Amino acid sequence: MTKLIAIYRQPEDQQAFDEHYFQVHAPLAKKMPGLKKIEVTRFVGTPMGGESPYYLMAEMVFEDRKTLDEAMASEEGRAAAKDLMGFAGKLVTMMIGETASGDEK
Amino acid sequence: MTKLIAIYRQPEDQQAFDEHYFQVHAPLAKKMPGLKKIEVTRFVGTPMGGESPYYLMAEMVFEDRKTLDEAMASEEGRAAAKDLMGFAGKLVTMMIGETASGDEK
Repeated sequence: MTKLIAIYRQPEDQQAFDEHYFQVHAPLAKKMPGLKKIEVTRFVGTPMGGESPYYLMAEMVFEDRKTLDEAMASEEGRAAAKDLMGFAGKLVTMMIGETASGDEK
Repeated sequence: MTKLIAIYRQPEDQQAFDEHYFQVHAPLAKKMPGLKKIEVTRFVGTPMGGESPYYLMAEMVFEDRKTLDEAMASEEGRAAAKDLMGFAGKLVTMMIGETASGDEK
């Protein structure tokens, strides 16, 4: 599996971030062709008790790299990217990852 | 679900990192009581074509926060943490996350 991962640093206004993320951005991202699953994780802390450096992570799962590349190049992918840059361009780090094999417990 | 997430910056020696991670560290982490699943993602790039700031991410999934806290406090959890600090203490960021509800496509 290939994942498009967006990891967001702590926003100044969490409520405004959440409203835009869940009401506007996530629905746009879910329209990307070939998307199998999107999993959102809220960071709530660290093992040592401090505040997490990141606020939220979204993992968008695709069958393979080709499908992901096509999704990002699609109209829906470009609309999601444009929205992302508008509301969280300064907070987000985007990465592409491959699920390592044999890592199921 | 509650996740313990380890995200590793780029190591100087990827081969040495991989050998220790997959041969020594992951088997220790998998012994933690209550661990449901471990998913490892290798970062291979970014949508803009640059190198990813991170090299690897491990997501260790537990039923809830209490189970995770007990796992970290267990003998197996402390052995995994000690090994982690020894081979990647300077590379790793550890965070605790909660899976957001309603995020399945």
